[in-house]
Amino acid sequence: MEREIQFRIATEQDLDRIVEMLADDALGSKRERYEQPLPNSYKKAFQAITSDPNNELVVACYENEIIGVQQITFTPYITHQGGWRATIEGVRTASTERGKGIGTELIRWAIQRAKERGCHLVQLTTDKQRRDALRFYERLGFKATHEGLKMRL
Amino acid sequence: MEREIQFRIATEQDLDRIVEMLADDALGSKRERYEQPLPNSYKKAFQAITSDPNNELVVACYENEIIGVQQITFTPYITHQGGWRATIEGVRTASTERGKGIGTELIRWAIQRAKERGCHLVQLTTDKQRRDALRFYERLGFKATHEGLKMRL
Repeated sequence: MEREIQFRIATEQDLDRIVEMLADDALGSKRERYEQPLPNSYKKAFQAITSDPNNELVVACYENEIIGVQQITFTPYITHQGGWRATIEGVRTASTERGKGIGTELIRWAIQRAKERGCHLVQLTTDKQRRDALRFYERLGFKATHEGLKMRL
Repeated sequence: MEREIQFRIATEQDLDRIVEMLADDALGSKRERYEQPLPNSYKKAFQAITSDPNNELVVACYENEIIGVQQITFTPYITHQGGWRATIEGVRTASTERGKGIGTELIRWAIQRAKERGCHLVQLTTDKQRRDALRFYERLGFKATHEGLKMRL
């Protein structure tokens, strides 16, 4: 029987667990700082996200424990006849919960949310080092039609 | 002698010219509707962009004529220790002005604006069909480290 995963908007009390999950990842471990107390930059970003109606930080929970996280950004563009897009970023599943379909449920939830918000497109970029991630997203119906270019400032 | 290009935030009076430029493009011609009056969806998107402090629609002008456009979105994320990113989208130069370095000036302006806004990263995706665009962005210092995945809804 499938477990019942709940999705909800993250609260400030979830932030510690979210950062712990982001740091518990091959690429994340090099760039996050999961410490007590949590660096203030995380709290400031959390406040900026939650005060912006076009950003949603979403957690997946099982029996009140957070086992997944993702951020969805809704953006109006002039292109595509003035269409809104949803961008998914920072998708992580708890290391103890990988391979159980939580990632699939997270992305499906985001796609549904994008539809509710009237988006014509849902998009994300994935690091070319994450080869399994590309296959995962392609199985879900994404097409790797674009190059994802980044520049550190 | 180099021409003096001016950059400014777009006003509603610029929208007609912006859509004209977006439609005058190999991919854009298939998906935009440059008509009089302009479809209302463009006006609604314009209003959503200008009322959002995290979105800036920027035009490049030469002697009061609009010759380029781009949109910059500033997004707070929990990842990268709560870092802000700038995303560039919808970059177009007037067809009569291509090959004169306007695109380079647009992107450099966006990078400078991203720094002013405290972003740690500037990013964009470019359609793999636009082979010249990839080289253009790489020359400006972007790295194609990510796959850009899209799903139409």
